[in-house]
Amino acid sequence: MELTEDQSYYAVIFTSIQAENTSGYAEMASKMETLAQEQPGYLGMEHARSELGITISYWKTEAAIAGWKNQVDHLVAQKTGKAKWYSKYSVRVCKVEREYHFNTEN
Amino acid sequence: MELTEDQSYYAVIFTSIQAENTSGYAEMASKMETLAQEQPGYLGMEHARSELGITISYWKTEAAIAGWKNQVDHLVAQKTGKAKWYSKYSVRVCKVEREYHFNTEN
Repeated sequence: MELTEDQSYYAVIFTSIQAENTSGYAEMASKMETLAQEQPGYLGMEHARSELGITISYWKTEAAIAGWKNQVDHLVAQKTGKAKWYSKYSVRVCKVEREYHFNTEN
Repeated sequence: MELTEDQSYYAVIFTSIQAENTSGYAEMASKMETLAQEQPGYLGMEHARSELGITISYWKTEAAIAGWKNQVDHLVAQKTGKAKWYSKYSVRVCKVEREYHFNTEN
């Protein structure tokens, strides 16, 4: 996704520390990524994990983010995440103000 | 960092794919993190790397971000990064609109 003059967009930064019991996590994470892609206003997702996990999802509007937050299967995943997979996490909803890109292939 | 009524803040999302030659990278990354901490308006930094690397730095103002972008030693690191360490990267400057946190220790 890239900013255009017509269309601003949003990034949701999800940072997390996993709990000891991560059984079922990988399957759920994969399922949620597929489900997010089907949501209206979804633009993309990026992920990395060291000790800290960072997942950034990109959305057209704040309404799209609210829609995803309240999607039924995603609510179940959030509940399981709190009960089982995460010892802590933070969610930050951000408006992308500007961006630039570098690519050796260009 | 957390939002307060008085103080909004910004997140700079840096996502990167490393090139094959990463000699000197770890030292420079460590040096830059220390240097960032000394910058006016610095609030924090989070990092994770899988195939994709994600570094998020948090800043009080856009002026603080501009100051860090143009800091002399950081300019040298950026130049070396383009020439040597990164095959591609993106920088997104974002305003944090809202956030929430979960912590099993609380």
